[in-house]
Amino acid sequence: SRSLNLAVIPGDGIGQEVVAEGLKVLSAVLPQDVKLETKEYDFGAKRYHATGETLTDADLAALKKHDAILLGAIGDPSVPSGVLERGFLLKLRFAFDHHVNLRPSKLLPGVATPLAGEPRIDFVVVREGTEGPYTGNGGTIRKGTEHEVATEVSVNTAYGVERVVRDAFARAQARPRKKLALIHKNNVLTFAGHLWTDVFNKVAEEFPEVTTEYMHVDAATIYLVTQPERFDVIVTDNLFGDIITDLAAAVSGGIGVAASGNINPSGEFPSMFEPVHGSAPDIAGQGKADPTATVLSVALLLRHLGYDAEAARIEDAVSADLAERTGKPARSTSQIGDALTVRVAG
Amino acid sequence: SRSLNLAVIPGDGIGQEVVAEGLKVLSAVLPQDVKLETKEYDFGAKRYHATGETLTDADLAALKKHDAILLGAIGDPSVPSGVLERGFLLKLRFAFDHHVNLRPSKLLPGVATPLAGEPRIDFVVVREGTEGPYTGNGGTIRKGTEHEVATEVSVNTAYGVERVVRDAFARAQARPRKKLALIHKNNVLTFAGHLWTDVFNKVAEEFPEVTTEYMHVDAATIYLVTQPERFDVIVTDNLFGDIITDLAAAVSGGIGVAASGNINPSGEFPSMFEPVHGSAPDIAGQGKADPTATVLSVALLLRHLGYDAEAARIEDAVSADLAERTGKPARSTSQIGDALTVRVAG
Ligand SMILES: CC(C)[C@H](C(=O)O)[C@@H](O)C(=O)O
Ligand SMILES: CC(C)[C@H](C(=O)O)[C@@H](O)C(=O)O
Repeated sequence: SRSLNLAVIPGDGIGQEVVAEGLKVLSAVLPQDVKLETKEYDFGAKRYHATGETLTDADLAALKKHDAILLGAIGDPSVPSGVLERGFLLKLRFAFDHHVNLRPSKLLPGVATPLAGEPRIDFVVVREGTEGPYTGNGGTIRKGTEHEVATEVSVNTAYGVERVVRDAFARAQARPRKKLALIHKNNVLTFAGHLWTDVFNKVAEEFPEVTTEYMHVDAATIYLVTQPERFDVIVTDNLFGDIITDLAAAVSGGIGVAASGNINPSGEFPSMFEPVHGSAPDIAGQGKADPTATVLSVALLLRHLGYDAEAARIEDAVSADLAERTGKPARSTSQIGDALTVRVAG
Repeated sequence: SRSLNLAVIPGDGIGQEVVAEGLKVLSAVLPQDVKLETKEYDFGAKRYHATGETLTDADLAALKKHDAILLGAIGDPSVPSGVLERGFLLKLRFAFDHHVNLRPSKLLPGVATPLAGEPRIDFVVVREGTEGPYTGNGGTIRKGTEHEVATEVSVNTAYGVERVVRDAFARAQARPRKKLALIHKNNVLTFAGHLWTDVFNKVAEEFPEVTTEYMHVDAATIYLVTQPERFDVIVTDNLFGDIITDLAAAVSGGIGVAASGNINPSGEFPSMFEPVHGSAPDIAGQGKADPTATVLSVALLLRHLGYDAEAARIEDAVSADLAERTGKPARSTSQIGDALTVRVAG
């Protein structure tokens, strides 16, 4: 009999609530013969305040033993900006070499979008997850004085760029439209931009069926609101990916339904799945959070582990649920989770 | 009698066409006693191909003598990405210390937006223009090999951040709503982010009437499409400003109407005014380009030089023209320019 050994990190704010629903749906959808084991970890603001720790070597060793990680949200106004982000979220992405940050955007029927008309949106962003301006390189001199200088160094390697570009080409190749857009700012960030562009063009030769285009990140924000149907697969740098995936989420149903995977394709380390949204402390504990993004992250997790049929069942359940929402009174976090659980089981 | 000594840089693609209309409107709106002198410069792709030059020291010395600069667009597919951007556009912004990059966004009545509903959009972005990831710092080692490493260094100084933040506070103070948002990514780019945040909070103490907020750049893209009415004045870093002003232009009528000023508030160097759009080589020479963004850039130029009433007349003419467009057949570049000329003169 098979097993799925899952690390669960509810985290802060609404994290606890949405993860509970994600686990409900996961239990309901898994085949009978798969033994689900979960272990909960207490990372986040509470642990930081209690111990000063965000993520220790021992934590990393414990997490490494799992097949995958499900995360709710990390972040709280009581912790200075950057401490949990750099000390936990990014530390984990870097330690486990989560270089493929996968963020699908699909506007499902019946779902509201801030865009006029009825745009067709169905693309996936492959965001690099371990390089670029996210490395934490840089520093500050003369801090707090009028002569302060602060730098941030974006580090880009052929190794790091090629592996994520290759992953994106393979994904584009596997989709019906077979289109891949590279998004960067190679007319200004010429060192990194040329590396990205050269590697992209080189790898493109191995994928003659994939139609490619290059787009500056500023122009890409325009296309995301005026012609989102243009996109199929996007590959981009860590920071540009951060920015455009929030915009992509906003136009394709909101961050209440945006899922993501921090993937280590080699399997050397467990991959981590999380909603794109944050901990939303303003609505925490009130049962108001939409667990759909977490449930869709569970689908990404299942697909990553080879449970394709189960992932599809979750996605179908979410589509059906969203299609019926218009005009209905708002439901609580657990009501939505229950509805999805019934659908995937039935 | 007064004079206005203007450097005109039509540039590439549609630049020539839109600048011609901008000058028409400028001539029509200027008071009789102001002597307008213009000198045209041939920067751009043609000059680069002919001479290999983009912007020489002699060019800078010549440009420095003008009261202001009007630019159409620079950029052509025949020139490798980055050559004209770094060699002309950015070189000029840096040489003339254009640290206030001003980009207003106003959705005028009757103008189409990709957003649903009827959003009220009226804000201005103060984008830093001489620092951040735009400095060209960084480099490449082992170019073209599998061991290539390319870096980009974002350089941020207290001096550079404070002057632009101060400018933004003054602008917010002068507007009815008196709101200022700082946009950055201080939870990840902690060195630069903390400098920006600390300086912002310090200067805020001098402007107690201004309501402030901080927003991560990724979240800002969401608000720009879901709650654009939230914004009044935004101050941000060079790269974030580049990205969000294209998005802002897209939601508030498109880049056909987005104007910008590259301003040196001290007056030590002439400021430069240009449409946000590029050279659009695909429609160049066909009379299809909308000159409105250039005409509105002329209004910014006039206001910068103290011709407030004339700037307002241009803006009113544009509002009236845009309000009457719906349902009418498309006009040519010069037809739109002529219509605006009649309006400002009348
Ligand atoms: C919280 C933050 C570190 C993170 C990021 O910038 O990657 C978040 O915005 C995201 O997109 O997952
Ligand atoms: C062409 C390019 C150098 C420029 C920039 O990135 O600043 C443009 O996008 C702009 O916004 O003016």
